[in-house]
Amino acid sequence: MTDKATIIVHSGDMDKIYSALIIANGALSMGMEASLYFTFWGLQRLQKGGLEKGPLSKMNFLGLGRWMIKNRMKKANVAPLERLLNDFKELGGKIIACEMTMEIMGVKKEELQENLIDDYGAVGTYIQEARNSKITLFI
Amino acid sequence: MTDKATIIVHSGDMDKIYSALIIANGALSMGMEASLYFTFWGLQRLQKGGLEKGPLSKMNFLGLGRWMIKNRMKKANVAPLERLLNDFKELGGKIIACEMTMEIMGVKKEELQENLIDDYGAVGTYIQEARNSKITLFI
Amino acid sequence: MTDKATIIVHSGDMDKIYSALIIANGALSMGMEASLYFTFWGLQRLQKGGLEKGPLSKMNFLGLGRWMIKNRMKKANVAPLERLLNDFKELGGKIIACEMTMEIMGVKKEELQENLIDDYGAVGTYIQEARNSKITLFI
Repeated sequence: MTDKATIIVHSGDMDKIYSALIIANGALSMGMEASLYFTFWGLQRLQKGGLEKGPLSKMNFLGLGRWMIKNRMKKANVAPLERLLNDFKELGGKIIACEMTMEIMGVKKEELQENLIDDYGAVGTYIQEARNSKITLFI
Repeated sequence: MTDKATIIVHSGDMDKIYSALIIANGALSMGMEASLYFTFWGLQRLQKGGLEKGPLSKMNFLGLGRWMIKNRMKKANVAPLERLLNDFKELGGKIIACEMTMEIMGVKKEELQENLIDDYGAVGTYIQEARNSKITLFI
Repeated sequence: MTDKATIIVHSGDMDKIYSALIIANGALSMGMEASLYFTFWGLQRLQKGGLEKGPLSKMNFLGLGRWMIKNRMKKANVAPLERLLNDFKELGGKIIACEMTMEIMGVKKEELQENLIDDYGAVGTYIQEARNSKITLFI
């Protein structure tokens, strides 16, 4: 067992991306390792310019909810997603992009933020890490 | 490793709140410890009068689905959420409210069911528990 | 601790059923055990003829998104759900149907794909497996 958090980011919803990054950064800052597997809608958030584009999983009426939440987050001094993602990388976090999703969605490597991605993997890569992780989540 | 279940309740959907409480109460009644971290939409369910107000994650057409499911649950002798939550507390379960969410949503302590909440915490509290838990879930 | 993945399939969304089966089959093919607990909307996918009927969790505009994704999956040589589910069983995976959900939804055993189901269980069955599993997920 490694002191690690291994998280699948299936959802592309803004609030869930926040949760994933806040948990992962929390784990890293407490001395754990952390890996994020971006798959399905989650992968879209790794596309260039896509990080902030996720809808809310609830209350997303004409985009108003999303704007309101962002505004409130700013007031509550919550770091924007880009900052959280950069912190994640600087703290030693690992990002894996799901190759199957790339093929299904027709997404090419050059369309992704390649500088942030440590590996392009399939389910075997995930299982190998997750089976030895103390925290496993599907978001 | 503690024989514990540590669950993040990110969703406020009625059916997912049911799942969280049924799993947590199951864990407690089998001798495990259990902690529920209410965050984002989940936190709204801890507001006074908010527990039963969650929408369904699917089939929520004009509120009909929600009413129908509640009715069927009653017929199937499934306890209402309030009862499940009280059982959770009586069996020794721990409830943590996410402070960051309270700040973002502008929710004050006195608006929450304070008598049920054991702690107001941030991600560090969660990681500390989750890294030693046998079951970790994100709902 | 058993080298096992224990997954709750709460969602009936097509993309999440794919994720659940791909992860579970990945675990099995790497020598792990795997159990899938179908509950709430997830259980509907075990109904006769229901496996392919799940909506997408996002982008499901008039059914177009669903059709498009299926088409792209075929082109990307991703196996259809039925094939993944059969592989899961052949590799030794275990399927548990949630009895409480059957009662709530009014679903009878003969309406389910009984040949695929190993057990009809309640939360206790789940906890017993999950507390000894290396990977626990809620999908």
